[in-house]
Amino acid sequence: MSDTITLPAPADFHVHVRQGAMCELVTPHVAAGGVRTAYVMPNLVPPLTKTEAVLEYKKELERIAPNVEWLMTLYLHPEVTPDEIRKAAKAGVSGVKSYPRGVTTNSSSGIEDYGVYYPVFEAMEEEGMVLNLHGEVPSDDEKNISVLNAEKHFLEHLRKLAADFPNLRIVLEHATTAEAVECVASLGPNVACSITAHHLWLTIDTVAPQPHHFCKPLAKEPRDRKALQGAVRSGNPKFFMGSDSAPHPSASKMPSISEAGELHSCAAGCYTSPYLIPLVATLLESFGALDKLQGFVSDNGRAFYKIPAKAGEEVVIRRPAVAVKVPSKLEGHGNEVVPFWAGRELGWEIVN
Amino acid sequence: MSDTITLPAPADFHVHVRQGAMCELVTPHVAAGGVRTAYVMPNLVPPLTKTEAVLEYKKELERIAPNVEWLMTLYLHPEVTPDEIRKAAKAGVSGVKSYPRGVTTNSSSGIEDYGVYYPVFEAMEEEGMVLNLHGEVPSDDEKNISVLNAEKHFLEHLRKLAADFPNLRIVLEHATTAEAVECVASLGPNVACSITAHHLWLTIDTVAPQPHHFCKPLAKEPRDRKALQGAVRSGNPKFFMGSDSAPHPSASKMPSISEAGELHSCAAGCYTSPYLIPLVATLLESFGALDKLQGFVSDNGRAFYKIPAKAGEEVVIRRPAVAVKVPSKLEGHGNEVVPFWAGRELGWEIVN
Repeated sequence: MSDTITLPAPADFHVHVRQGAMCELVTPHVAAGGVRTAYVMPNLVPPLTKTEAVLEYKKELERIAPNVEWLMTLYLHPEVTPDEIRKAAKAGVSGVKSYPRGVTTNSSSGIEDYGVYYPVFEAMEEEGMVLNLHGEVPSDDEKNISVLNAEKHFLEHLRKLAADFPNLRIVLEHATTAEAVECVASLGPNVACSITAHHLWLTIDTVAPQPHHFCKPLAKEPRDRKALQGAVRSGNPKFFMGSDSAPHPSASKMPSISEAGELHSCAAGCYTSPYLIPLVATLLESFGALDKLQGFVSDNGRAFYKIPAKAGEEVVIRRPAVAVKVPSKLEGHGNEVVPFWAGRELGWEIVN
Repeated sequence: MSDTITLPAPADFHVHVRQGAMCELVTPHVAAGGVRTAYVMPNLVPPLTKTEAVLEYKKELERIAPNVEWLMTLYLHPEVTPDEIRKAAKAGVSGVKSYPRGVTTNSSSGIEDYGVYYPVFEAMEEEGMVLNLHGEVPSDDEKNISVLNAEKHFLEHLRKLAADFPNLRIVLEHATTAEAVECVASLGPNVACSITAHHLWLTIDTVAPQPHHFCKPLAKEPRDRKALQGAVRSGNPKFFMGSDSAPHPSASKMPSISEAGELHSCAAGCYTSPYLIPLVATLLESFGALDKLQGFVSDNGRAFYKIPAKAGEEVVIRRPAVAVKVPSKLEGHGNEVVPFWAGRELGWEIVN
């Protein structure tokens, strides 16, 4: 392999850039990490269920980081009607994100039943909008559904949606299981799958003792990571990068006990934006898939979303002459975030 | 059910009381939690591989808490020879604990192959010593062995040992899976199983976001917890309490980053000693097994270990008139430990 790689405008098809002070801190990191086009999640507080709110948020992101193409989404919710879909499509909103209720950060407004949204999906199909699925069902002790098998149980919903809406583009987000990879590969060209950087590296063994590795969906078994790596190595264009880069204040990654003696859980999410392309290059090289880097970060997602790379937006990476380590924290605007792979060495760096 | 229960001398057949300042803090908690006999783990630094070291440790525990009967164990290791076993048996050491290498706190001296220990097991059989097994194999990515299935993979070793040594009493410690419960129930009377308080309550959903719930073996799926609760509810005398109460300084339960930028994992262990019997009573009542409390905490383990309860050592518990909460931390001797169930209300309290 060459020591320099030129990538046509890398795109991250799943990113969280938050609100307020945290948004000010993390939004510039997207371009710093080598990403030219970012597909933005709508799970704010309150969630983005109206076109106006999405456009306002987009304006904010463009103010902070005008050098990135921001692709926007609505949060699937009873307020999102077929009329709202047509309005959003006209305004340039790219997709709609579905969160099953209660499964991750800011998902308390999530959906419980897809049936009621069929008229919405029909409108999306007509307007050419993409449906993005957080592919986990809520945990249920009686049915033995836990964070370990929540994704596998979701796949029946994916299969049904794919069959009922063959012209609706559907993305299973942040796949974590061998079963999800197989399922997506088996479905028609309207179904694709995003894969995060962290799920290409973590397994449950490194998640359980480390809150900074805790994310939803949880990283699973070695066989699952192997399947994700295999999907990337295969070059199948259905699989592309969606980092699910999700910053949390470092304090919210620590267990804490309130004055009243209540124990608080750690927030779910890994933060990879500030060095995303170098990290992904390092990971792909570690499992023999560096030759699929361009497909994974530039071509596959853009082809599925129909967002061609613009000329002049190439990102050049090289093997660093001097060791480059991921910083142990990122600070600014009153926030501090501990990034994924803190303190570890990257095998690649961005030149331009 | 009555509002008062009298339990013949409760015994905890798996407890960690550590060394140095931590030992000073936690050793008195054993009696405070309603335990009269405690079976002590040997995974100190260095591990207890010699009878003299075990006796010295026992003296230390008796100095700190003379009101508890301390049952002692050796750490299975090449230094533990058949001669050492006979010496230990004469000195009153009760058992030998086996840690597979690297699977939990202070297990770097653990074993890799049981075959080489067969002469030791023969000597233990003759001397009537008990073999205590940490029932997990080390993780192995190539074989898809992770902390999720490490216990299931261990069961073949348990079956083989039980068959090869039908007169050796063997305890599978801190079972966490439905498969382990089934396996122990299916084996002969020489095989028993300890169950912790925390595994009767946790599942992977409450472990993943909470370092204070991180322990080895990891709590698994709802079906597994149900099997553990079912084992207790069945009253099968093969199943008894071994708390695996394992204190860690609260700082070591937090993720941390060194000056050099290295991310440190959280320590594995839940600490239940200071209120163990009230907690276990509360849990058993929650799943309809309060009538099996005496068997679980007093009778079953003692019968298997042949350690009868002494008269006058009864523990009386009652439903509290005023709400009793687990403290948010326990402090002393320069240490601070966050206990399991911190801030939660207990349904029972110790009277005497």
